[in-house]
Amino acid sequence: MAKELKELTSRAENYSQWYQDLVIKADLAENSAVRGCMVIKPYGYAIWEKMQRALDDMFKETGHVNAYFPLLIPKSFLSKEADHVEGFAKECAVVTHYRLKNAPDGSGVVVDPAAKLEEELIIRPTSETIIWNTYRNWIQSYRDLPILINQWANVMRWEMRTRLFLRTAEFLWQEGHTAHATREEAEEETKKMQSVYARFAEEWMAMPVIKGVKSESERFAGAVDTYTIEAMMQDGKALQSGTSHFLGQNFGKAFDVTFVDKEGKTDYAWATSWGASTRLIGALIMTHSDDNGLVLPPKLAPIQVVIVPIYRSLEQLAEISKKVDGIVTKLKALGISVKYDDADNRKPGWKFAEYELKGVPVRLAMGGRDLENNTVEVMRRDTLVKETVTADGIEEYVKFLLEDIQKNIFQKAYDFRSTRIVTVDTYDEFKEKIEEGLFILAHWDGTVETEERVKEETKATIRCIPLESDKTPGVDMVTGKPSACRVLYARAY
Amino acid sequence: MAKELKELTSRAENYSQWYQDLVIKADLAENSAVRGCMVIKPYGYAIWEKMQRALDDMFKETGHVNAYFPLLIPKSFLSKEADHVEGFAKECAVVTHYRLKNAPDGSGVVVDPAAKLEEELIIRPTSETIIWNTYRNWIQSYRDLPILINQWANVMRWEMRTRLFLRTAEFLWQEGHTAHATREEAEEETKKMQSVYARFAEEWMAMPVIKGVKSESERFAGAVDTYTIEAMMQDGKALQSGTSHFLGQNFGKAFDVTFVDKEGKTDYAWATSWGASTRLIGALIMTHSDDNGLVLPPKLAPIQVVIVPIYRSLEQLAEISKKVDGIVTKLKALGISVKYDDADNRKPGWKFAEYELKGVPVRLAMGGRDLENNTVEVMRRDTLVKETVTADGIEEYVKFLLEDIQKNIFQKAYDFRSTRIVTVDTYDEFKEKIEEGLFILAHWDGTVETEERVKEETKATIRCIPLESDKTPGVDMVTGKPSACRVLYARAY
Repeated sequence: MAKELKELTSRAENYSQWYQDLVIKADLAENSAVRGCMVIKPYGYAIWEKMQRALDDMFKETGHVNAYFPLLIPKSFLSKEADHVEGFAKECAVVTHYRLKNAPDGSGVVVDPAAKLEEELIIRPTSETIIWNTYRNWIQSYRDLPILINQWANVMRWEMRTRLFLRTAEFLWQEGHTAHATREEAEEETKKMQSVYARFAEEWMAMPVIKGVKSESERFAGAVDTYTIEAMMQDGKALQSGTSHFLGQNFGKAFDVTFVDKEGKTDYAWATSWGASTRLIGALIMTHSDDNGLVLPPKLAPIQVVIVPIYRSLEQLAEISKKVDGIVTKLKALGISVKYDDADNRKPGWKFAEYELKGVPVRLAMGGRDLENNTVEVMRRDTLVKETVTADGIEEYVKFLLEDIQKNIFQKAYDFRSTRIVTVDTYDEFKEKIEEGLFILAHWDGTVETEERVKEETKATIRCIPLESDKTPGVDMVTGKPSACRVLYARAY
Repeated sequence: MAKELKELTSRAENYSQWYQDLVIKADLAENSAVRGCMVIKPYGYAIWEKMQRALDDMFKETGHVNAYFPLLIPKSFLSKEADHVEGFAKECAVVTHYRLKNAPDGSGVVVDPAAKLEEELIIRPTSETIIWNTYRNWIQSYRDLPILINQWANVMRWEMRTRLFLRTAEFLWQEGHTAHATREEAEEETKKMQSVYARFAEEWMAMPVIKGVKSESERFAGAVDTYTIEAMMQDGKALQSGTSHFLGQNFGKAFDVTFVDKEGKTDYAWATSWGASTRLIGALIMTHSDDNGLVLPPKLAPIQVVIVPIYRSLEQLAEISKKVDGIVTKLKALGISVKYDDADNRKPGWKFAEYELKGVPVRLAMGGRDLENNTVEVMRRDTLVKETVTADGIEEYVKFLLEDIQKNIFQKAYDFRSTRIVTVDTYDEFKEKIEEGLFILAHWDGTVETEERVKEETKATIRCIPLESDKTPGVDMVTGKPSACRVLYARAY
């Protein structure tokens, strides 16, 4: 076994350490010299690029276009929407000066006090304020609506406790900001984008999600309703994986964005915003990976197939390489990304461990006997099952395997989650089950007080009110008060 | 004539105002509420996305991968490379605090003095320092080299006088940062990336460029050599359109990045960096556009073909639409992006002017007579020439036109430049020619003093020492001192 494998903490031993080890050892990301900010390394960034491409295509298919708004936001903009400022002013990076100068003592550079800004600027924690301030000039008539814009950007929230991908001060994301003439249209957009996220999670990330609506206390600051997709990680914790907010006319009013409708009546524009971030990489890791390393869904794997030659002499390597060249060409013709690793400074065993760690979905190996028999050794990363198959038509078999792995890891995650969602009616049972790392469907009386009490006593929060679930009324498990339907409780990242 | 056309200032009247008008009226970008920062509107951003895709593909073809480094840089990092801090500390946004709080008088939010950072952070003006601080941990042996990384990011330089795309406080760019084991390899990389930029400019932007090396005073702060591509705008000014820097061991030494070579000897790593930005959109506009609006190279045009129906009744519109549907399908099958604008609230004349303004390369129009005759009216944006052609095989003709326009506007720009590069031997003639907006090849004695004097007296700077040019020695036109070769002088953006 290679060194890296031995050093990867097992999930059973310490789940949190396993995650941290894996992110570092699989070369996905690392902490930077700036507190709370990460460096996304090439392998991690390649996954993000694949996610971006897929999401961007889906946004465009649903009629959206991209644009770019400023990184910096005047401090006063934040205060214009009352809830928004409460949610975001507490943890933001503030630019106060625009110049450095040489220190008088020659020790380096210092802030030039003469270059103080009249109004401080905030590094965007999210862009509703700067965007709606801009939309004011773009919107006069119903003919200017809808505006369906998305932005790919970096944002910053000054988090005190950070974890690579899951919670960092700076992160990359996309944020959609749309403006509409009617409430109905904005609500429809909000739900449509929640569905886009759910489809992306399930079809690309192979990660089953539960669609729902947030309770008031978990809503986005400034939203009327927040729609979410929630995924179950292997430790049973929930991870919010994408949110879509119906903002009502809150930002239209705060930034005075009005339009004249078909009847000549003036009204405030209706808004939505929706975002997904590099946090999804954390979700991807924690959904599928195992004690050997990453398990990546083929659709998002930077390298889908790796081919490792096993040789005793340079002559034999040349023969293998010749044969492999043909396979590589055929795989590429099928649109499959493939790497032939014939580096001579590492042994096959080391390479096997390395690509397992990095989650390459399919590994092919070819040695002297394979040459003689016209065979290839194939290993699939999800099950670690090895088999020797004929080299003829291997490209079609690999294609089948990639599709099968994509389906299989989704099903595995789905089955895992299915056995870990329970319906509970008493608070005692709830407390027991929550310790086991389960998702719990329980009745809730709809009050913030009950929600807070449960959170304080069990660390579980209401993840969402699921869109698709039994809507039979009942009584709150804590207070006994009437409940309209069951909600989804879990501990969460 | 539509309103927009009339309002566009002509180039002859006021070139600078023409540019400003065009950026705004063609919906490319606008100024934001934050001084010096722009909003890139969807149509402008769509051009940037096309540029990004093409450049990114070229970077990957040449072996590079993408990654992401933090937005914020500790102040002390800037001071580690002496020239670099002089170049960049003067104009940067400084983060000093990480929290706002409610103002005691309820008037909004104020900076929380308790949340002052121990060390101030700078919004990256460029990322050499944070990246080389990171590379220190990635590089131990020659086996870790080369590192060939690119980053797509926003950067910020606190410019006092800004112009949309050409000079803004925040802009989008890519910055490549590579590390090598030998000087030769790093120099080769520097030149390779200059060639990639030149190829992109000429093949995609249809913008001819001159490749050269910067004089010492025009070098990037911290570089040993800066390689540039320089383009001529329609007013005869030069626009630096991409730079590639050979950084020697300056950053290796500043950040103590050493490696053990094959012989077991320790040395500092060799560096390059190279970047191109949203400024290229400004270059694109000023190279090809005319008094009617944008002229976009087909390869970068968000919409390559627009089709406008001309109808007298809804019945006729239905017939035209049916015919157009077939054409749209065929165009799309050829990979051509096409928009059918059948909006009923604008007249054809308005639409014609609008798409001319927006630089759509080919416009098709179809009316009643076209239906009868099985014809289409075709207009190409570069020459504004209209013709009526048969509808059979129109898709192939459009494809030919797009390729022809791409070639034609390159040739036009090339011919324009050819007539405006002159060789000059006396300072008097130089002063005369520089007023005419020409590029001037003149002898230079190699001193900063002469360069500065010419700049002060004529506002012309040495754009570069061209790579391909007459290398016959001569005498400096100003001082009469010996000169190794002619350099390229021009006024510049």
